[in-house]
Amino acid sequence: MLVLILNAGSSSLKYQLMNHATHDVFASGLAERIGIDGRLVHEAKGTKTVKEVNLPTHKEAIELVLDLLANGAQKVIDSVEKDIDAIGHRVVHGGEYFSKSVIIDENVVAKLERLIPLAPLHNPAHIMGIKICMELMPGKPNVAVFDTAFHQTMEPSTYMYAVPYEDYKEHGVRKYGFHGTSHYFVSNEASKLLNKQNSKIIVCHLGNGSSICAVKDGKSIDTSMGLTPLEGLVMGTRSGDLDPAVISYLMQKKEMSAEQIVDYLNKKSGLLGISGISSDLREIIEASTKGDERAMLSIDMKCNRIKKYICSYAGVLGGVDAICFTAGVGENASLIREKVCQGLVFMGIELDKEKNDTRQSGKREINTESSKTKIFVIPTNEEYVIANDTYTLVKDLYK
Amino acid sequence: MLVLILNAGSSSLKYQLMNHATHDVFASGLAERIGIDGRLVHEAKGTKTVKEVNLPTHKEAIELVLDLLANGAQKVIDSVEKDIDAIGHRVVHGGEYFSKSVIIDENVVAKLERLIPLAPLHNPAHIMGIKICMELMPGKPNVAVFDTAFHQTMEPSTYMYAVPYEDYKEHGVRKYGFHGTSHYFVSNEASKLLNKQNSKIIVCHLGNGSSICAVKDGKSIDTSMGLTPLEGLVMGTRSGDLDPAVISYLMQKKEMSAEQIVDYLNKKSGLLGISGISSDLREIIEASTKGDERAMLSIDMKCNRIKKYICSYAGVLGGVDAICFTAGVGENASLIREKVCQGLVFMGIELDKEKNDTRQSGKREINTESSKTKIFVIPTNEEYVIANDTYTLVKDLYK
Repeated sequence: MLVLILNAGSSSLKYQLMNHATHDVFASGLAERIGIDGRLVHEAKGTKTVKEVNLPTHKEAIELVLDLLANGAQKVIDSVEKDIDAIGHRVVHGGEYFSKSVIIDENVVAKLERLIPLAPLHNPAHIMGIKICMELMPGKPNVAVFDTAFHQTMEPSTYMYAVPYEDYKEHGVRKYGFHGTSHYFVSNEASKLLNKQNSKIIVCHLGNGSSICAVKDGKSIDTSMGLTPLEGLVMGTRSGDLDPAVISYLMQKKEMSAEQIVDYLNKKSGLLGISGISSDLREIIEASTKGDERAMLSIDMKCNRIKKYICSYAGVLGGVDAICFTAGVGENASLIREKVCQGLVFMGIELDKEKNDTRQSGKREINTESSKTKIFVIPTNEEYVIANDTYTLVKDLYK
Repeated sequence: MLVLILNAGSSSLKYQLMNHATHDVFASGLAERIGIDGRLVHEAKGTKTVKEVNLPTHKEAIELVLDLLANGAQKVIDSVEKDIDAIGHRVVHGGEYFSKSVIIDENVVAKLERLIPLAPLHNPAHIMGIKICMELMPGKPNVAVFDTAFHQTMEPSTYMYAVPYEDYKEHGVRKYGFHGTSHYFVSNEASKLLNKQNSKIIVCHLGNGSSICAVKDGKSIDTSMGLTPLEGLVMGTRSGDLDPAVISYLMQKKEMSAEQIVDYLNKKSGLLGISGISSDLREIIEASTKGDERAMLSIDMKCNRIKKYICSYAGVLGGVDAICFTAGVGENASLIREKVCQGLVFMGIELDKEKNDTRQSGKREINTESSKTKIFVIPTNEEYVIANDTYTLVKDLYK
């Protein structure tokens, strides 16, 4: 089945056309600066095309993508109508409504609209993308795959914040967690590698946005992101955990509003804020090798926080069979993996330095022979999860 | 040496008169509702006296205390001037100025004043208490003992938040930690019990306010409270950790200012907010035994958070020789200790249920014989630390 995978942001659109069974990607790309001017990078048949083109709304962007898929030199299908079987939408926030992927109907759209206060930047864009697909490809099934759904198995004692209970009941204040498709995919791969019935797995999804997840017997039991993706680890530009009182203190000192401070904690903080160099860990590591102290500090802070989460999740799981590193930083930054695992031999976690330092693609094991806990590097594939969930939900429609 | 120990709050004054060497407490008490109406509970010679008395300012409160110490039926000294050797003040916030206790002079008072923005409720009251003592007992040495000082040994990678570096440099935004005298006292007692040169100790100070501290070779290397005492564990009325974005979200939903929300997180949240019953764990445990679900939830949340901190600090320490429980809840609530230690056998932490359930005063060991990590209950004594530090600093003045 050919699934068009869409990730609509407020001014962007990521897409892939994937065969759900073979994982073959026929085409992929990114439309940016929608509503500002417009730019599209499209990749198909081994060729990358960059188009500077006016994209007033997401509708023009999706029309352009569909046109490129079915027409011209880079075409990969004959007809949108005949060859695309379904559309799988990545949706950031499913709140408590959705614990798994769903075929989108009016009722689902209404729920996504109700969730806008919890994801004011993301859900409106997703809803727009869904409505445009319904208009441009009438009759084709649309599926929503949620970043939050995998974490709906958390217990109340984990997902509740210690604020008055009414704030949960009336305003939905709780931990939701994100990166669910990645945590699901990677923990599932790890569980296959472990070949064990009951498994205790910790997934470290370390990209620009980063989160950790404790997975017991295939279910998320805790994760580091919260009501929003701001909580938890030190990220590219996000602060992660801090004393909640820092917000009111900074508001006073910097004469900024709460919204401005939260924006500042999301966009100017994290590695960027501490290092003053970049949100890109590669640049920070380079600066640190030249002796830049704030670069070193930001790396230490990031690793220290990850280590603390790993250990706390080991506690919650009652032990850990495997720790998995994934996403850009997790898959590539051997330094980070090394620093995170340092000093954890007492818990049975022992990294093999040589295996860790060997650059290699694909999934691999980087622990020592004697390590009780396996340490894996597993490339994530969120698009595959979206394609597969979409297939599973719509396959009966095509019988 | 007889030390008068004072803890001046915004409308209260706690005090003890203690012999620094024997730890004998000659008298102790609490003045409350200062500036509102006034009430004093005074205990000496085995008798407790309650006085409803007008206390317009802290000056009248301290005058009354000094009068009770040296005059009337409950007098324990002949003369304030001759018999009180020094005054030890508990000071909440010493910022980065103070890594140990100091004799107070003008320079110290000036620094305490500069720290008011970091402790707007506490430091002004402390300064007031100090100035009144200087006026009422001229020439006697005053010593400041800080809640933050013990944690000044933390590394930057631990105490920094991932906010722009300038906010640390210009506004002092960092983790300071509190309950330092208690963490110091208890870890020091534990280290004596361990009788080990290098020790890795975790102290759980669980009272109405609660914090955890990782102590390596006698030095604090991490602690759960932060810029303010709001961060960290689920406390009586404080939320502890949450997604920083919860603040701006609740401000919008509840139409409250940031200050109001932080106040709400300090005074209406925690166990009280979740259970809806009380901030007092004893009442909550009682309700939970009768099947109250929110009471059970609040207990589970509290224990889950403590367990996660213990495990993360074990990681930071690279193992743990002893876990210590102290303060009201830590010393008395066997249920909490049991739930916290559950499932940590994989780390070598094994509670002996019978020892844990035996009510007993004084310090004691509650782990099984086979537990790699010792588990101690150790009553805290912050006043002793204040008396002892005061003695150490002023003894040369009396040679």
